[in-house]
Amino acid sequence: MALLKGNAVVGQSGGPTAAINATLSGVIRGVSSENSLIGKLYGMKNGIEGFMKEDFSDLSSFFDNEKKLKSLEETPSSFLGSCRMKLPKLSDDDRIYVKVFSIFEKYDIKYFYYIGGNDSMDTVMKLDGYAKKIGYEIKIIGVPKTIDNDIPITDHTPGYGSAAKFVATAVKEIARDSSVYTLKSVTIVEIMGRDSGWLTAAAALPKALTGKGADLVYLPERVFDEERFIRSVEEKLDTCPHVVVAVSEGIKYKNGRYVAEGLKNEVEDDFGHKILAGVARSLERMIKKEIGCKVRAVELNVLQRCSAHILSLTDVKESIRVGKRAVIYSVSGQSGKMMAFRRREGKYRVDIVAVDVSLAANKVKYVPDEFINENGDGVTEKCIEYVKPLIAGERKIKYEDGMPVHITLE
Amino acid sequence: MALLKGNAVVGQSGGPTAAINATLSGVIRGVSSENSLIGKLYGMKNGIEGFMKEDFSDLSSFFDNEKKLKSLEETPSSFLGSCRMKLPKLSDDDRIYVKVFSIFEKYDIKYFYYIGGNDSMDTVMKLDGYAKKIGYEIKIIGVPKTIDNDIPITDHTPGYGSAAKFVATAVKEIARDSSVYTLKSVTIVEIMGRDSGWLTAAAALPKALTGKGADLVYLPERVFDEERFIRSVEEKLDTCPHVVVAVSEGIKYKNGRYVAEGLKNEVEDDFGHKILAGVARSLERMIKKEIGCKVRAVELNVLQRCSAHILSLTDVKESIRVGKRAVIYSVSGQSGKMMAFRRREGKYRVDIVAVDVSLAANKVKYVPDEFINENGDGVTEKCIEYVKPLIAGERKIKYEDGMPVHITLE
Repeated sequence: MALLKGNAVVGQSGGPTAAINATLSGVIRGVSSENSLIGKLYGMKNGIEGFMKEDFSDLSSFFDNEKKLKSLEETPSSFLGSCRMKLPKLSDDDRIYVKVFSIFEKYDIKYFYYIGGNDSMDTVMKLDGYAKKIGYEIKIIGVPKTIDNDIPITDHTPGYGSAAKFVATAVKEIARDSSVYTLKSVTIVEIMGRDSGWLTAAAALPKALTGKGADLVYLPERVFDEERFIRSVEEKLDTCPHVVVAVSEGIKYKNGRYVAEGLKNEVEDDFGHKILAGVARSLERMIKKEIGCKVRAVELNVLQRCSAHILSLTDVKESIRVGKRAVIYSVSGQSGKMMAFRRREGKYRVDIVAVDVSLAANKVKYVPDEFINENGDGVTEKCIEYVKPLIAGERKIKYEDGMPVHITLE
Repeated sequence: MALLKGNAVVGQSGGPTAAINATLSGVIRGVSSENSLIGKLYGMKNGIEGFMKEDFSDLSSFFDNEKKLKSLEETPSSFLGSCRMKLPKLSDDDRIYVKVFSIFEKYDIKYFYYIGGNDSMDTVMKLDGYAKKIGYEIKIIGVPKTIDNDIPITDHTPGYGSAAKFVATAVKEIARDSSVYTLKSVTIVEIMGRDSGWLTAAAALPKALTGKGADLVYLPERVFDEERFIRSVEEKLDTCPHVVVAVSEGIKYKNGRYVAEGLKNEVEDDFGHKILAGVARSLERMIKKEIGCKVRAVELNVLQRCSAHILSLTDVKESIRVGKRAVIYSVSGQSGKMMAFRRREGKYRVDIVAVDVSLAANKVKYVPDEFINENGDGVTEKCIEYVKPLIAGERKIKYEDGMPVHITLE
C-alpha cells in the first residue's frame, strides 16, 4: 500500500459534550505523531458548514505545547464550533460534494476526521461514498461523541461518562438537599435523552451504590403510565418522606404522545427532532393534583453536557485515545469507518476498533430490556455494572480566579 | 467570671447550603477542644422543631475521628436536618419557652449553637432574651449561613462563597455551550435570591475576569424594564451572536409585580390551567416574541446550594473557623451574639467577631448601589473585587464509585 501524504482537517458537529475537546486533543496528538505523512492539521470552524466557507484555523501551529492541549481537554463544548448541517443524498444533488472535494484539493487534504453523533456519522458515510465514487484518494474517519450514548456498535460513546458522572453526582446532592425538612416531598429531576434513557439510567447509580439517590427512574424505552406513577410515588412516600424521581425528557404515554407535550408546544430542530422541555413540570402538576404534597421540579438542562469541572477521568482518557486512534487507523489506510469501543470481559478495559460507519449513521441504540427493571421504574444490577466504570476517576482541573480555565482559539 | 460547665447542643435551620456542615464540623471541633467545660455535644434533628421533641443525637461519640469530620465538611445540605419554625414573641406566649428551657435543664445544656439565616437569628435572639428574663445561665450563639449572603453586619455569609463559585463556573460553562452554532441565540440563566442579588452578581465574574460569561446581569435591587431589556439584548446581539443573560428569580417591574408572574407569559396546560413559570421562562418568551431568535432558559435551581462537589476552599475554611469560634466566644461568656466576618483592608483576610444578634435577626442586606452599574444590567469592578476572593480555592473532595462521598448519621 502506498503511503498517503498530505494535510488533514478535523471538525466537530452536533450537540457539544464536556469531553468532545479531549477527542480533538487526541486527533491533534495523533497527527503530530504522524508528521512524516501529515503536514498541516486544519480545524474547520462550525463543522462542515464552516468547511464549505474555507473557515479554517491552523491547529498544528496553535497547539504548540502540552499546556494548551491539557487546557483543551478541560474546556467544555465544541472548541471549533459546531453545526447541524446535513448533506443531501448522493443521488439527489452532487453540487455540494463537488464543492467539498474542490476544497480538499485546494488545501491538499488527504485526511478528514469528524467528531460527532449519529447524524455526523451520516456526513462521514456520504463523503466517503462520494470519494469512492469519483475515485478521490482521501481517508475519512468518524469519531463518536454524544452524552446520549445512543450510537450503535460502540460499547459506549465518548462524552457519556462525564455527563453520567455529573448526573449521578447532581442526583446524589439533590437527594440530600430534598430531605432536610420533616415535611413530605417529591423532587423530580429531568434528564436529557430524547429517545434513549442512557443518561437517565445514570441517575440510578447513587441509590444503587450509596443508598441515597433517585427512588424511581423512568426511561423513554418504557411507556409511561400516569396512574401507576402516582401509585409508585405514594408507595415510596409511605416508607420515606422524601422521594426523588429521575425522568427522561423523552418519556411518552401509550398513545405515543410525549408527557412533556401537555405543557409546551413542540418545536423541531433542523433534523426534524422534537425539542422537548417540561416533563418534570408535567409530573409536578400530576403530583400536586393527585397527592397534594410539596413537589419540586429540577431540570439539569445543559449543565449535563457542559459541566467540565467534573469530568470522568475514564471518559477523558478514552476520548483522547479514540482521537489518536482515528489518526492511526486513517494512516493505515482505513476510510469510511467509525471508531468504536469494545469492552473486554472481566475487569473494565476497552479496545478501540474501526467499524463501518454505515452501521452507526442515523441509527439509535436504546437501553436494552435486560437493563430495565420489571416495573419499568428503575434499572437492573446489570445496568449499574455497565455505567459504573464509565464515571470512574476525576480529572484534576486547573482553576484560576476560582473558576476552571478554558482555552479559546484567538 | 465563673466557668460554665455542662453540655452543649447544636442545630441547623433554614435552607441548606453546601458549606453548612463545615460549620457544624467547626462546632464539633470547637467543643472537643473545650472538653474541660463542655461534656456532651448533642445534635438536634430538624432544628428547634426536633429539639422540642428531644430528638437528639450524640455528636461527640458519632464524630470520633478526623475522617468522619472531613467527610462531614464535604457533605452538602443540613446533616442534622432543618426546619422553618419561628418562635412566638416573648410577650405572646411563653409555653414554648418553658418547654425549651425544661429540656435545657433535663439535659444539663449550658451552650446552644444555632446555624442558620436571618430567621434563625430570630430564634437565637428570642431564646437568649428569655434566658436573661428568667435568669437561666446558658450561652446562646448564632452562626450565620446562607447562599443568599443577605445577612447584615457580617462582610459575607458562610455558604455564599461555594454557591457563588458554582454559579460563576456554571455560567462560564453555559456561555461556552451556548456559543457553538453560528445561529444567533440568547441564553437566560435564572439564579436564586428573591430579594437580594448577591448570588446573581457572582454570574458577572466569568465575563469580568476571563472575558466570556454573562453579558447582562439583572439583580432584584433594580426595577426591571422590559423594553430596555429587549433593547440591551438586541444591542449585544449586534456585536456577538451569542448573548448570555443572568437574572435573579426575584426581579420585579416598576409596579412591584414579579417578572416571573407576568400574566401574559403564563403557560397553559391541556386543561387550560395556568402554570406559573420562572423568570427565565418569562424572559425567554419576551425574546421569542420581540426578537424572534433562538432562546433557551436555564434554571440553576437547587444545584446552587447543594453542589458540594465544587466547594470554595475559602468558604469551607471560613465555615469551619466560624463554627470553632462560636464555641470559643461562648465559653468566654458571650451570649445572644452572632458570629460575623470583618474583612481587612488590602490583601483578603477576615477576622471573626461577635455582634449583637438583634442587629442581624429578621433583617436583609441588599447589594449596595456602588456594586451595580449605571444601566442596572451589570455589576461594578468594586463588586467583582468583593466576590472574587470568596470563590477562591478548591476543596479536594473524596470520591468513591465515581461520586463524591457523603456522610449520614446512622
